[in-house]
Amino acid sequence: MDHLHEQACEACQTGAPTVSEQELQELLPQIPDWQPVVRDGVMRLERSYAFRNFRQALNFTHQVGELAEAHDHHPAILTEWGKVTVTWWTHKINGLHRTDLILAAKTDRLPGSAG
Amino acid sequence: MDHLHEQACEACQTGAPTVSEQELQELLPQIPDWQPVVRDGVMRLERSYAFRNFRQALNFTHQVGELAEAHDHHPAILTEWGKVTVTWWTHKINGLHRTDLILAAKTDRLPGSAG
Repeated sequence: MDHLHEQACEACQTGAPTVSEQELQELLPQIPDWQPVVRDGVMRLERSYAFRNFRQALNFTHQVGELAEAHDHHPAILTEWGKVTVTWWTHKINGLHRTDLILAAKTDRLPGSAG
Repeated sequence: MDHLHEQACEACQTGAPTVSEQELQELLPQIPDWQPVVRDGVMRLERSYAFRNFRQALNFTHQVGELAEAHDHHPAILTEWGKVTVTWWTHKINGLHRTDLILAAKTDRLPGSAG
């Protein structure tokens, strides 16, 4: 199986298919710390990262922001003292696109993610 | 009345008094865009700022983070495309300290807050 974190993100168009339940179950083991959550009726992928202080959390937020800008796909990032929660989903399709799983995998590989 | 944004933040100790209802009503007109919200039983001050894109939102998050570090008092900052939501409260007293109102006023005066 190709590794998610090595895959390219497709530009996501309105009407693109959401990830199927089967595909999700196949791919989630590659991003085991991410939880699928349904909020406001929309499936999302969410993970919290722990840090030793606020500065490290803020630095990681910056890295996630740069990753998002590089792929023109933007998560919600909640920055708190010692903690960052990242939530990926695709607004245009009100759900999860394969791109969200790829970007979750790339988020795990950011240098600041280790805390 | 002294302006909130010009006041110094006291170091907040466990056992310090929360802002009284009367004090809150007196001071909120100085920060009219901030909403007192109770979440998980804790009173907080929350405001969302609108931006034209993700980059501007991320830059503002960085400014709020630096303000927080400068005062060693840390809010929750939710960064999304075109939007940043800042929530101030004081963990040590499970509620609002005068410092939270002062930092809300200072947040409003950050250069990036205009969007």
